[in-house]
Amino acid sequence: MQRYRIEVEFNGRDFVGWQRQSNGLSVQEAVETAIFRFCGQTVTLHGAGRTDSGVHGLAMTAHFDLMKPARVDTVRDAINYHLRPNRVAVVHVAEVGQDFHARFSAERRHYIYRILNRRSPPALEQGRVWHVPVPLDAGRMSEAAAVLTGRHDFESFRSTQCQADNALRTLDQLDVMREGPEITIRASAKSFLHNQVRIMVGTLKLVGEQKWTPTDVEVALQACDRRAAGPTAPATGLYFVAADYPGDAGWAAIRAD
Amino acid sequence: MQRYRIEVEFNGRDFVGWQRQSNGLSVQEAVETAIFRFCGQTVTLHGAGRTDSGVHGLAMTAHFDLMKPARVDTVRDAINYHLRPNRVAVVHVAEVGQDFHARFSAERRHYIYRILNRRSPPALEQGRVWHVPVPLDAGRMSEAAAVLTGRHDFESFRSTQCQADNALRTLDQLDVMREGPEITIRASAKSFLHNQVRIMVGTLKLVGEQKWTPTDVEVALQACDRRAAGPTAPATGLYFVAADYPGDAGWAAIRAD
Repeated sequence: MQRYRIEVEFNGRDFVGWQRQSNGLSVQEAVETAIFRFCGQTVTLHGAGRTDSGVHGLAMTAHFDLMKPARVDTVRDAINYHLRPNRVAVVHVAEVGQDFHARFSAERRHYIYRILNRRSPPALEQGRVWHVPVPLDAGRMSEAAAVLTGRHDFESFRSTQCQADNALRTLDQLDVMREGPEITIRASAKSFLHNQVRIMVGTLKLVGEQKWTPTDVEVALQACDRRAAGPTAPATGLYFVAADYPGDAGWAAIRAD
Repeated sequence: MQRYRIEVEFNGRDFVGWQRQSNGLSVQEAVETAIFRFCGQTVTLHGAGRTDSGVHGLAMTAHFDLMKPARVDTVRDAINYHLRPNRVAVVHVAEVGQDFHARFSAERRHYIYRILNRRSPPALEQGRVWHVPVPLDAGRMSEAAAVLTGRHDFESFRSTQCQADNALRTLDQLDVMREGPEITIRASAKSFLHNQVRIMVGTLKLVGEQKWTPTDVEVALQACDRRAAGPTAPATGLYFVAADYPGDAGWAAIRAD
């Protein structure tokens, strides 16, 4: 038996999310089916994170075991062949030991959130960004983001459906950068709560449009009540970028062949 | 009568190209129709360039005249309203004098061409890049690109359908940059011949995969024969970025509200 680590790119528009569900095609099911078509084995694909419907993936790490080992290039090309037309693609494959677990071994997870901040709607990036037509002050959003970094009880910033035992998390990075009409928010942490990034972005947007102050964000955080924070930003702007594992070069190094 | 300069963003996948044609919807027709729906006037939209089917636009400049002037914000928002769902969007509108002509006043035109150079197919950028699965040496492509810059007879690098009187053109810039799996080629000139950028890219690709040397590109240029150059790269990777006019801040400054 051989364990494989794969990095998966997908367009969230075409899936009900990462995890297998009865109401439509998930990324997990699409990849598991492609693996079955390639080698006839029914596998369970374990992902580094679960993403909601509409959320995109650049290099989502996952793992699975094959009874009959094959070369990594063969595994990658065969899965991609059976995934055509590729709304999901395996961009990297590596052999790993049985101690590697895409979910439990991950040391850090990275997301980006893209806002298109201009009056006119997106013609090229439809479904790939959150279009916010009112002017946003990225400097103020950055100030408010600093309030959220560090170790906090993020009760106000998780979905009421979130199943985690508690909301205590350490947010390592929450950066807001503007480049022309595009605002990119980068978030990194060992783990995130359900909808945490989207609720943080929805809240920062209120600061950007001057409806809230950075202090209001601090008050919302301390309230430990979902109703105290801003709305959940749409899934279309969110990208699971990558996860880091022991020995990886780390953040920003998206693994692709 | 008031002349308006607009910058237009469009997804080339949805159009037969920029110019009005009988075989399908062009960007020109889509925008002209939206203007008619907004103000009841039949206008002719003059673009900075003509793009083929599949070629994208980031900020294609165009102009038209309105008998009954309206505020620039109104013009932009009204056209975009009538273009919904926006596969094309007006990202900027300005009032200009009758001496401004989107085609004839342009001092420089800028294109980028995007190659996704990795083994696995694009899941997120389908129809937005040229997927080249064999390894390309961007350094060698850059060397070969230097051969093409400057003033030359580009007869080998234009479509046999090209209607320009002669092929003498000055190519100001042809840069090749790699960032991870993506290779971006930037081309700037006062004007380009039909398919010139795509034939140059198709030729540079031969150099990148070691089938050609930079010297072979020089030989192809001197041959002044379309058959001497490489194949025409697919339209999907090509973007008309912007055109520069007297007084503009220039290249890279994509105008968007």
